[in-house]
Amino acid sequence: MSPLQAVQVNAGALYTAFEFAAVFASAVSGVIEARQRRLDAVGTFVVAFLTAFGGGTLRDVLLDRRPFYWVAHEWMVWAVFVLTLSAPWLLRFSSGNVSARALIVFDAIGLGIFSAAGTQLAIAMGMPPFTAVMMGVITAVCGGLLRDIVCNEMPMILRDGRPYATCAFLGNWALLGLLAVGVAESAAVTLGAILIFTLRVLTLRLGVELPR
Amino acid sequence: MSPLQAVQVNAGALYTAFEFAAVFASAVSGVIEARQRRLDAVGTFVVAFLTAFGGGTLRDVLLDRRPFYWVAHEWMVWAVFVLTLSAPWLLRFSSGNVSARALIVFDAIGLGIFSAAGTQLAIAMGMPPFTAVMMGVITAVCGGLLRDIVCNEMPMILRDGRPYATCAFLGNWALLGLLAVGVAESAAVTLGAILIFTLRVLTLRLGVELPR
Amino acid sequence: MSPLQAVQVNAGALYTAFEFAAVFASAVSGVIEARQRRLDAVGTFVVAFLTAFGGGTLRDVLLDRRPFYWVAHEWMVWAVFVLTLSAPWLLRFSSGNVSARALIVFDAIGLGIFSAAGTQLAIAMGMPPFTAVMMGVITAVCGGLLRDIVCNEMPMILRDGRPYATCAFLGNWALLGLLAVGVAESAAVTLGAILIFTLRVLTLRLGVELPR
Repeated sequence: MSPLQAVQVNAGALYTAFEFAAVFASAVSGVIEARQRRLDAVGTFVVAFLTAFGGGTLRDVLLDRRPFYWVAHEWMVWAVFVLTLSAPWLLRFSSGNVSARALIVFDAIGLGIFSAAGTQLAIAMGMPPFTAVMMGVITAVCGGLLRDIVCNEMPMILRDGRPYATCAFLGNWALLGLLAVGVAESAAVTLGAILIFTLRVLTLRLGVELPR
Repeated sequence: MSPLQAVQVNAGALYTAFEFAAVFASAVSGVIEARQRRLDAVGTFVVAFLTAFGGGTLRDVLLDRRPFYWVAHEWMVWAVFVLTLSAPWLLRFSSGNVSARALIVFDAIGLGIFSAAGTQLAIAMGMPPFTAVMMGVITAVCGGLLRDIVCNEMPMILRDGRPYATCAFLGNWALLGLLAVGVAESAAVTLGAILIFTLRVLTLRLGVELPR
Repeated sequence: MSPLQAVQVNAGALYTAFEFAAVFASAVSGVIEARQRRLDAVGTFVVAFLTAFGGGTLRDVLLDRRPFYWVAHEWMVWAVFVLTLSAPWLLRFSSGNVSARALIVFDAIGLGIFSAAGTQLAIAMGMPPFTAVMMGVITAVCGGLLRDIVCNEMPMILRDGRPYATCAFLGNWALLGLLAVGVAESAAVTLGAILIFTLRVLTLRLGVELPR
C-alpha cells in the first residue's frame, strides 16, 4: 500500500467513523425527544429513525442517489432499533444525567458532520456551489424538520430565531472556500464540521438571534 | 399453456385482485375519514388518494421504481375519483351501517395486503431483508401517515399504542421466513397478508398495548 | 435561422419568461405569508422557497426528472434569497399597499402558469392524460400544500371550499383538448394558463363553493 492509498483509506475510515458518530448522536437526540412527547415504541423508533436518517434520505432522493445510507449500512438501522427498545430502561437510569446541555451537544455534532458530509457529497456528484451548500443544509436540518412535521409540531428551525440552518449554511460556504484554495478534501470537511459545531454552540451561548 | 405458466398467470391475477381489494378498501376508509373531518370535495379526494396510493408511492420513490401503481393503472385513480364524488350520497344512505367495525376491517385488509406485497416487491428488487421488511411496513402504514400529516393531525400510528406497524413488521418477517424454508412466493405472500390481518384484528380485540 | 426555428426559440423564451413570472409571483406570496406568521429569516426563506419551487420539485421527484428547475437556474434561488433578506424593508414600505387582492392575483398567476407548464411537461415525458393533468395540478398546488404542512397548518386547499385545485384540474383538461384538436403547443399552454387564472379569479369573485 502506497502512502497515498493509506491516506485515502484513512480518509474513508475517518468519514465512516464521523458518519457513525452523527447517526448515533442524532438517534439519541431523537429518542430523548420521543420520550418527552410520550410516544409509544413505534413512534419512538420512527422519530429516532427520521432524526438519524431523514435528512440524508431526503438529500439522496433529491440527488437521485441510491442506495440510501441506511440500506447500505443496514446494521445501523438495527442499532437504532435496539436503542429504541432499550430506551425506557436507559432513560430511567439516566434521566437525571441527560441534561439539556447533552441534547444540545449531541444535536450540534450531528449538525456539523451531516452538513459538511452532505456538501462534499453533492460537490462530488457535480452539483453547482449553491445547490451543494443547500444539499448540505438539507442533510443536516431536514431530519429534525421531518421529525417535527410527523409529530405535528411547528418546526423549531422555522421559528425559534436561533442560528441553526444558518450555521450550516455559513460553514458549508467556508468548506467550499477551503476546497477552492486547495485544501485537501478530508481536511476541508473536518474543518467545516468543526466550524459548524462551534458556530452552533457559540451562538447559543452568546444568545445570538436571527432577524425577524 | 403449460401447467407452470397457468400457475404463474393465476398468481399474477391473484396479485392484481389482491391489490385492487387493498386499494379499494383503503380508498373507502379514506373517504370515511375525510367526511368525518368535514373536508370539501378536493380534500376528500386528496385524503382518499393518499390513503390508497400514498404508501406505495413513497415506497416506489425510495426504491426509485417507475411507473407508480396509479400511473400504470390509471383507471383506479378514476375509480377513487368517482368514489369521492359519490361519497356524499353513498354515505348518506349508509351512515347508520358503516360501523366503526367496518372501518377497522377495511383498514386491516389494506394493512395485510400492502405489507406483504411491498415486502415481496422489495425482495424481488434485491433489497436486503431488513430493508425489505421496512419497505413493506412503509407501503402499508405511510398512506395513513401522509393522510394524518396533510390533515394536520398527530399521526395515529405514533401514539395510540395499538400494534399496527408492529403487526406488519412481524408478519413481513414471517413472510421472509416462509420464503427461506422454500414456500412458493404466492403462498408466502398470501399467508403473510392473512397473518398480518389476523394479528391486527386480534390485538385490537384483545386490547394489546405497545410498551411506552 | 428559419421562421420555424425563430418560432421555437420564441416559444422557449416565452416559457422562460412565464416560469420566471410564476416563480417570482409565488415567492412574493410566500414571503408575505411568512411575515404574517412572524417566522424568522430562515423560516421566511424556507416558506418562500417551498411556495416557489416545492410543487415543481415534487413533480420532478414523481416523474424521476433531473436537474430540478432551481438547480438548473441557480440564480433564481439567489433571487428568492435576496428577496427574503430584503423582505423586512420591502414590506415595511409597502404594508399599506400590498392588499389581499395583490396576494390573490400573484397566487393566481402562479397557479395558472405552473399548472399548464406541469401538464405540458408530463405530456412531453409520455405520461397518460389523467396522470399529466394530475402532475399539472401537483406542480401548481403542492408548493402551497408543503408550505402549510411545514408551517403546521391545515392546508387551505383541503378545507376552504373554494375552487383552486379544481380550476387547475379543469384548465389542464382544456389544455389537453386544445392539443388534441391540433392547436400548437405554445398556444395551448398559454390559453390553458390564462383560463386557469381566469377561473380562479372569477370563482373567487362570484363566491363559488365546492360541494362538501
